[in-house]
Amino acid sequence: MTSTAPCLFPAERLQRFAEQVFLHHHVPPEQAAEASRLLVLSDLRGIDSHGISRLPTYALRLAEGTVNPTPTLRIVRRTAATATVDGDNGLGLVVGPWANRLAMEMADETGAGWVAVRNSNHFGIAGYYVLQAIERGLIGWAMTNATGWVAPLWGAERRLGTNPIAVGFPAGEETPVVIDMATAAVAYGKIQIALREGKAIPHGWAADREGNDTTDPGAVDAGGTLLPLGGNRQQGGHKGYCLASLVDILCGVLSGANWGPFVPSFFPRPGESSESVGPGVGHFFGALKLDGFIDPDEFRSRLDHWVRVFRATRPAAGTNGPMIPGDPERQATAERRRHGVPLLPVVVDSLRQLASETGVPLEDPPEGMQG
Amino acid sequence: MTSTAPCLFPAERLQRFAEQVFLHHHVPPEQAAEASRLLVLSDLRGIDSHGISRLPTYALRLAEGTVNPTPTLRIVRRTAATATVDGDNGLGLVVGPWANRLAMEMADETGAGWVAVRNSNHFGIAGYYVLQAIERGLIGWAMTNATGWVAPLWGAERRLGTNPIAVGFPAGEETPVVIDMATAAVAYGKIQIALREGKAIPHGWAADREGNDTTDPGAVDAGGTLLPLGGNRQQGGHKGYCLASLVDILCGVLSGANWGPFVPSFFPRPGESSESVGPGVGHFFGALKLDGFIDPDEFRSRLDHWVRVFRATRPAAGTNGPMIPGDPERQATAERRRHGVPLLPVVVDSLRQLASETGVPLEDPPEGMQG
Repeated sequence: MTSTAPCLFPAERLQRFAEQVFLHHHVPPEQAAEASRLLVLSDLRGIDSHGISRLPTYALRLAEGTVNPTPTLRIVRRTAATATVDGDNGLGLVVGPWANRLAMEMADETGAGWVAVRNSNHFGIAGYYVLQAIERGLIGWAMTNATGWVAPLWGAERRLGTNPIAVGFPAGEETPVVIDMATAAVAYGKIQIALREGKAIPHGWAADREGNDTTDPGAVDAGGTLLPLGGNRQQGGHKGYCLASLVDILCGVLSGANWGPFVPSFFPRPGESSESVGPGVGHFFGALKLDGFIDPDEFRSRLDHWVRVFRATRPAAGTNGPMIPGDPERQATAERRRHGVPLLPVVVDSLRQLASETGVPLEDPPEGMQG
Repeated sequence: MTSTAPCLFPAERLQRFAEQVFLHHHVPPEQAAEASRLLVLSDLRGIDSHGISRLPTYALRLAEGTVNPTPTLRIVRRTAATATVDGDNGLGLVVGPWANRLAMEMADETGAGWVAVRNSNHFGIAGYYVLQAIERGLIGWAMTNATGWVAPLWGAERRLGTNPIAVGFPAGEETPVVIDMATAAVAYGKIQIALREGKAIPHGWAADREGNDTTDPGAVDAGGTLLPLGGNRQQGGHKGYCLASLVDILCGVLSGANWGPFVPSFFPRPGESSESVGPGVGHFFGALKLDGFIDPDEFRSRLDHWVRVFRATRPAAGTNGPMIPGDPERQATAERRRHGVPLLPVVVDSLRQLASETGVPLEDPPEGMQG
């Protein structure tokens, strides 16, 4: 157990563990089941930062009472195609799926459904929500704001989260198109990796506390910032800033939740500002019915054609050619379903500690899966 | 007139000229008025590539009959909150505003309106449409696909247009937030400027015909491509590719229009492929009613607060601090309303030729405005 090599855990085992931890903290059974499925889907899709490694923090927030295990979810405003939901400070993993279902139901009825959410918490991966929409034959949209690490272009302060945008389109015979992207140049996780490895980071990822583009990964923790997608003006950093703003305004300003620098932290630090401009974190979900625009079969076969044309694009020198949005996550899922989810020893240790605190057993991975 | 310095023309004069040229080519009066207003708004907002400089090509397409001056605009499919419009091969400057109005009317009625458009042509600047929504107190969305110059990440062929996304939010006392951005790293215009000036371009803007990132602006015309926002994988080029795909699928695949490499060219070149997967160019418009989510006054005052906090962000070293999305265009508009729209001599010459062909007078700029 002192090795730094990852251990491979079957996804089902991690999911069962997460579910029981949520149940232990009084999350109702159906919600615990979906929250754990959502959480571990992140690990399966290769987005380690948003998966089971966050479970101890979710559990802590439930245990200390700063997140409500049994929220009363409430529609506070509604038209035929729009609504705002108050999440009653529940787990984002519970509030998000509920609000997303509302958007999908409205789309089934009226062609489109758009739901802003306030008073929520971290909602996992945005991709989960649009995959749900794809399963129902809908175009799905999901966004969330998040704690600020990112500077607006030409600013030297943290003002925006990595604010992801996900949009998914159902195909026919081909794989669906699943876009799920942060609007920052990179996630903070990549800065951490460079720090651990003692390596410089490329220009365009981060700035120091004066707002100078830097290659020093330590500059971020020393009062610096991440940069928006594009990085600087010449490379389109204003566009990344626009996208992050779009997400922040839809999720935070429109819903009535916190926005920008006021979005509460997933991992609160002592001394952090607790100024608030509304309740909790905000999300924004959308769903569009194919049928409202085009014969659904025609759309699916047209998207199949699109996928084939893009796959067949002549590869750039030294590459295997273009991927379709969603391919990397699909490849990770196939690989991890077969071989297990790799967890770093530090993550396994935190889960074992959680197991001992809650009395929920964390079974060791099967022999063959030890990484 | 042999100078290369720009001439300054009052916007009203350019708009009157464009309107009369459209009328000359049998565009109905109301449509000619809006099309010319839309066209010159681009010049006012500083987006010279999409303004009056395109008028000779619009006129040519009308004259040769490849664009329909009197289209029968038609809703081909509709739900309470979605529709698809067939533009009957009309001017995008006519089809776009019509479809956008439909989206806004649906939003007024049901909270949300989303309209896909096929069988259209170049629709001007995306920003125009969201400004219309803002005037009606709505959140507005506008996208269009366009002729392919951009490679998907890891591809070495032109597959996607610069596919812009615009989203606008109405504020209260502060300026509205108006996002209007191409999803390519840069527009082709910036490559042309580097070519004219004999300068190298930065990495991340373009690739040669083998898909290698290049600093040679000549590589694009020699079979190369533009790169998506982000440029390469390390800087997030996959995200720009995802955004361009999002626009292409909504505008082209969903509407039934052309998509990707099949989108017809605004300036057709001999020998260009004319393979088609649907009629014309595609757009996508959306409108959301504030009232469907939150008290509109509350939204406006919250957005005012957002704008103030972002403006007040400490400036990065060597900058004046962050701008609000829409600021550069607002500054250009104020400047150009005061001093006139600067037109390069080559553009003025092409307008004079158009004047002599159509008999529509192009008045010289007033003395004080000669650039």
